[in-house]
Amino acid sequence: MEKFMFAALKEAQKALAKDEVPIGAVIVIDGKIIARAHNQRQSKKIATHHAEILAIEKACKKLHDWRLENAEIFVTLEPCPMCAGAIANARIKKLYFGAFDKTGTNKNLLVDILSDNRLNHKTEVQGGILEAPCAEILTTFFKNKRNKK
Amino acid sequence: MEKFMFAALKEAQKALAKDEVPIGAVIVIDGKIIARAHNQRQSKKIATHHAEILAIEKACKKLHDWRLENAEIFVTLEPCPMCAGAIANARIKKLYFGAFDKTGTNKNLLVDILSDNRLNHKTEVQGGILEAPCAEILTTFFKNKRNKK
Repeated sequence: MEKFMFAALKEAQKALAKDEVPIGAVIVIDGKIIARAHNQRQSKKIATHHAEILAIEKACKKLHDWRLENAEIFVTLEPCPMCAGAIANARIKKLYFGAFDKTGTNKNLLVDILSDNRLNHKTEVQGGILEAPCAEILTTFFKNKRNKK
Repeated sequence: MEKFMFAALKEAQKALAKDEVPIGAVIVIDGKIIARAHNQRQSKKIATHHAEILAIEKACKKLHDWRLENAEIFVTLEPCPMCAGAIANARIKKLYFGAFDKTGTNKNLLVDILSDNRLNHKTEVQGGILEAPCAEILTTFFKNKRNKK
């Protein structure tokens, strides 16, 4: 489990190198990583280009299927509502995330969405995997941004 | 308002021609359509390729900006949680939708998401624009699917 979150953290570092908010995601099936992606919202200037969306799209293309029923997704930060919805739409079995989004836009809205009985698909959720390094890369990024101002 | 929903319905017809669930979306700024898209989940085999996501991506590419702050989006069906989240992420000002998703996966989850105080961005929502034709194209599609079985 931690091995896959490390791979997601490596993706977050790629985002950091592009001065993007450092968030990464990997998708795993049968113990193998089938897709890796990092946040590219700012560099591509596209609102939907979060790490999770890009990873899901890569995995779908690879499997030629919009259903990722046996997949697990590892994300360094608690996903936003868009990404939570995408995870449910792709029928992903389990979501593991690193840092909790305490101060951002999500504030556990994710968990409310994925556990809502109105959704047809149920995705299991487990947060706090490698929480410290997943949170630190983000807090350092935002601290540096503020210092530059 | 109805003029733009008609344009979204035209997009839904393009989806229908590809044997996709017929849902269409257009994005409008200052009274002009800047992006049009239709559902392509099945033909592209990508879970995220809903009409709204594709329209938002087109609009961002056109404006070279992930923020669509002065935009309105017209969608023939009440959006799913992923698309509701994407609309909020793109900071779209107002969402107009046609048919209410009474039997699908959403069941007003959308409205709960867009009105949740935890989200930083507030998008206004108005449903029921050209509700009858927006609903009919969908019910006919699913009736035909069942009859073929």
